[in-house]
Amino acid sequence: MDNIDLQILSILKENARMKASAIANEVNLSVSAVTERIKKLETSGIIEKYTLMVDQKKIGNDVSAVIEVAIEHPRYIDPFISLVGAIPNIISCYCVTGDYDFVLKVIIDSSEGLEQIYRMVKGFEGVKETKTYIILKNIKNEITLLPETANK
Amino acid sequence: MDNIDLQILSILKENARMKASAIANEVNLSVSAVTERIKKLETSGIIEKYTLMVDQKKIGNDVSAVIEVAIEHPRYIDPFISLVGAIPNIISCYCVTGDYDFVLKVIIDSSEGLEQIYRMVKGFEGVKETKTYIILKNIKNEITLLPETANK
Amino acid sequence: MDNIDLQILSILKENARMKASAIANEVNLSVSAVTERIKKLETSGIIEKYTLMVDQKKIGNDVSAVIEVAIEHPRYIDPFISLVGAIPNIISCYCVTGDYDFVLKVIIDSSEGLEQIYRMVKGFEGVKETKTYIILKNIKNEITLLPETANK
Amino acid sequence: MDNIDLQILSILKENARMKASAIANEVNLSVSAVTERIKKLETSGIIEKYTLMVDQKKIGNDVSAVIEVAIEHPRYIDPFISLVGAIPNIISCYCVTGDYDFVLKVIIDSSEGLEQIYRMVKGFEGVKETKTYIILKNIKNEITLLPETANK
Amino acid sequence: MDNIDLQILSILKENARMKASAIANEVNLSVSAVTERIKKLETSGIIEKYTLMVDQKKIGNDVSAVIEVAIEHPRYIDPFISLVGAIPNIISCYCVTGDYDFVLKVIIDSSEGLEQIYRMVKGFEGVKETKTYIILKNIKNEITLLPETANK
Amino acid sequence: MDNIDLQILSILKENARMKASAIANEVNLSVSAVTERIKKLETSGIIEKYTLMVDQKKIGNDVSAVIEVAIEHPRYIDPFISLVGAIPNIISCYCVTGDYDFVLKVIIDSSEGLEQIYRMVKGFEGVKETKTYIILKNIKNEITLLPETANK
Amino acid sequence: MDNIDLQILSILKENARMKASAIANEVNLSVSAVTERIKKLETSGIIEKYTLMVDQKKIGNDVSAVIEVAIEHPRYIDPFISLVGAIPNIISCYCVTGDYDFVLKVIIDSSEGLEQIYRMVKGFEGVKETKTYIILKNIKNEITLLPETANK
Amino acid sequence: MDNIDLQILSILKENARMKASAIANEVNLSVSAVTERIKKLETSGIIEKYTLMVDQKKIGNDVSAVIEVAIEHPRYIDPFISLVGAIPNIISCYCVTGDYDFVLKVIIDSSEGLEQIYRMVKGFEGVKETKTYIILKNIKNEITLLPETANK
Repeated sequence: MDNIDLQILSILKENARMKASAIANEVNLSVSAVTERIKKLETSGIIEKYTLMVDQKKIGNDVSAVIEVAIEHPRYIDPFISLVGAIPNIISCYCVTGDYDFVLKVIIDSSEGLEQIYRMVKGFEGVKETKTYIILKNIKNEITLLPETANK
Repeated sequence: MDNIDLQILSILKENARMKASAIANEVNLSVSAVTERIKKLETSGIIEKYTLMVDQKKIGNDVSAVIEVAIEHPRYIDPFISLVGAIPNIISCYCVTGDYDFVLKVIIDSSEGLEQIYRMVKGFEGVKETKTYIILKNIKNEITLLPETANK
Repeated sequence: MDNIDLQILSILKENARMKASAIANEVNLSVSAVTERIKKLETSGIIEKYTLMVDQKKIGNDVSAVIEVAIEHPRYIDPFISLVGAIPNIISCYCVTGDYDFVLKVIIDSSEGLEQIYRMVKGFEGVKETKTYIILKNIKNEITLLPETANK
Repeated sequence: MDNIDLQILSILKENARMKASAIANEVNLSVSAVTERIKKLETSGIIEKYTLMVDQKKIGNDVSAVIEVAIEHPRYIDPFISLVGAIPNIISCYCVTGDYDFVLKVIIDSSEGLEQIYRMVKGFEGVKETKTYIILKNIKNEITLLPETANK
Repeated sequence: MDNIDLQILSILKENARMKASAIANEVNLSVSAVTERIKKLETSGIIEKYTLMVDQKKIGNDVSAVIEVAIEHPRYIDPFISLVGAIPNIISCYCVTGDYDFVLKVIIDSSEGLEQIYRMVKGFEGVKETKTYIILKNIKNEITLLPETANK
Repeated sequence: MDNIDLQILSILKENARMKASAIANEVNLSVSAVTERIKKLETSGIIEKYTLMVDQKKIGNDVSAVIEVAIEHPRYIDPFISLVGAIPNIISCYCVTGDYDFVLKVIIDSSEGLEQIYRMVKGFEGVKETKTYIILKNIKNEITLLPETANK
Repeated sequence: MDNIDLQILSILKENARMKASAIANEVNLSVSAVTERIKKLETSGIIEKYTLMVDQKKIGNDVSAVIEVAIEHPRYIDPFISLVGAIPNIISCYCVTGDYDFVLKVIIDSSEGLEQIYRMVKGFEGVKETKTYIILKNIKNEITLLPETANK
Repeated sequence: MDNIDLQILSILKENARMKASAIANEVNLSVSAVTERIKKLETSGIIEKYTLMVDQKKIGNDVSAVIEVAIEHPRYIDPFISLVGAIPNIISCYCVTGDYDFVLKVIIDSSEGLEQIYRMVKGFEGVKETKTYIILKNIKNEITLLPETANK
């Protein structure tokens, strides 16, 4: 992966729908060279997915929260992970060091909805302790970090 | 925003690079109708950005962490927010209720790099307390939640 | 609900026993207009109840405390709520985010009485953890907040 | 204070606007006897105030929270108390034992409003630490406890 | 109980073996008056016990510790109390508010001995959590507080 | 120190005012032998003090509490110790390991009095954090532990 | 054990492979005297073991962590100790006072490996709570402390 | 580094003073081959040091403790590290994630000595918080972990 690959990734990070021809223009390559490079980045697994970010409040998701979860015994960890996978409102889940095992992020329409999710998570077998924070404001919300040279 | 809009959002969430014609096919509309709807979703601010997800390990970012931060006095909150904005390795930052004021997610190449970021954050004026968790595994890592009907 | 409604609510907040005629005087309306407005505020459910505040120490309730309660599993939440409802000394109970599920306020005659209540709460099925604070002084003890314009 | 006084208090607790004549009926006394007893309860300071309870959501107060506050040094306690007194959205404030000095209850229109109050409280001179819980549901919300015999 | 009683208590607090005659001298009363007053203080239960304080290190008790104990369910509180009563090395035990139920003080000959006591306490039925502090130094170690006038 | 010394200590622990002749009787020694042994226990510093235990509630001390104190910097430790020494209501003070530096026991007449002591302690220079527990009940309150053989 | 013994220990601490003759030179004794002294230090049990320190990163052990463990009931302490003994990656284990029972140090090749060890420890019978810290840097890593005079 | 190197390391780990000839015997190589391999392990930096383990109690170090330290601001981290380096009784020091910055292990002759070290550490500029645990027992105390194949 060379610097031109990084430039392409950087462009796609800011606008994943940009046409290959426009990208080609910016990086001073032919369209087919760009297309090939993108394909390689995809098949090598570096690019996992093209997706979009939505203004959650505008589609009615007013409440978001962080839930920290401690599990009682490691035998509950894998079942916990599959349950988390099945609830779309839990949009992210990290397995962490510290006194909790997982940090979840939840997006939902209302306090009532949050209480439902909270009860669901707390009710999973083997959940020992939870701690919930309401997110008052999203200051920054990226998902992709590229090496610095790519940002120039 | 009707159900077809939701279908379009849902398709773009899974593949933001899909051509308007392919989307048109899936939702049984003309290409121009789809293009117009997408434009409206963009101008109304519902769609914020098309972006990509990258396999962080494959580009050398081996370490990720959650840092919780408590601020000493509210006068430090706004300066803290701009400092956070200027560090690309802090990829997300939420202002929360509880005993901490912010939850940050950091992605970086190594333990040494994490220690640098940690010292930087701890050195921001007005930072009173921090708590750092290493992320051992990403179980789930979405950024967009769409209403359920859109997922069908 | 207009500004006059707010004035009426504000008057009743300070003295719920004030006669309609006296209220009418203060808001420059006829008695029947005031009576009608109060009725509407009642039937719409905005006014829930007229009640009184009593000097607890003067009727022998010397001790008050805050008890935070964490519940083991969500299946115990509803039974917990009904038990709380049945104990008059628990005068308020909020379901909260954080590391506890409920914040209770208890008023009672003595330390011995508090210990009884404490044992009762701790003995409810599914109570996992409790934390008790004695209230040394009531600094402020309102129950109703009205929009600011009403306070003028 | 005898049992009839308790009955009167109990009636007024449930409906502070009930007419003396209706109360007289219930307790089997003359209206003047009831009026006199009420006056005595008022002048002795047992009855502090007649007030009303309002459905906060119906007047636009969607968010309520508990804030625990620790003060740095006792010289900040009295100024803190006067500042609290001046903010109507802080509807109650207790001075407590434990690791915090005060427990506040806040009612406000929105998350943004809560953040404002939070910054204000955190910005008071001498505030060392705070911990905020969102109230997801009011299970019980009394303010007056009467001796048991009065409830019959 | 008058001021002379307080003087007598104060003298006995400093030297419980002082003879009635010597006390009589100090308080300017006859020996029989002093003897009678002491008897009354004993029979009324004000004086509970005359005891002695020993230099623990000099008799081989090198280690002392504070153990905080939380109990799982109130049904274990009374059995816990009797077990504590039966272990002489637990020299004091208070039932407290907060997140623990009991604060114990332990005196023992060695770290190994402390570990034994610790295991014993932790092994009592219903003990949920413990927290142990080693006492590095006794700064002050009174057991009796008398009203101030008595100290003059 | 032999077993007879321990017996004497044990007797004095239960009744520090017992006459030498009565003790002599119990341990089967002459009065002068007992007197001499007691003198040796005193001069060697094993016996520190004869004192009495008083029923605190009967002399108006209704409230007792444990206060844990953390100090900001070691330079405040010695001044803190002398301040503690000067307040009779702080009847014991231990320097401990853990997250706090000191554990104090306070006895006082009322909640108001406790609040005064609390403010005083919190106001000492260099006090960083405090945590206060009310003592609901004294389960056991010894100050002297003697080796087991002495208790037989 | 005299000062020359301490010098010998001090030399061996810095280089356990140093020949007896070289040591003899440094301490101005005959080789046989040195050999004899070393033998005595070994047979008396003062010297427990000669060992080596290895640069863990150079042999592929990239991750090290501290795990604090609380045990549910003392009956699990001895089994826990034997399990710990059987896992080479747990290179040290201390039984401590405080809110945890054990502090472990773990060395391992990767985050995945750490997660395995973590699950193993958490899965031991009777493990109630754990708290994991990643070691970002080894500042100092001695195992032997010798009296000061020995270091000169 | 091959398997024979690992065997040599493993032998030296158990007895760092073993002669090259004895090692040669065990691994079935010539003495010169073993000597050369050891030299290479040393010059490559894999072997950092040959050292010895001493029975601390036998040389009068009766007390050992873990101290967790949080630093106020990153500018105090480097000075803190050099101070730690200068105190021999702090035998290890790790920089960690979590709510503390450092975990220290202290070995010392007595409680009084520990209190001195504790005051010293707490008095270092920029030390914000400390938490001290006494080590009641060393369960395991290795410093070197070798890959598993080497242990066979």
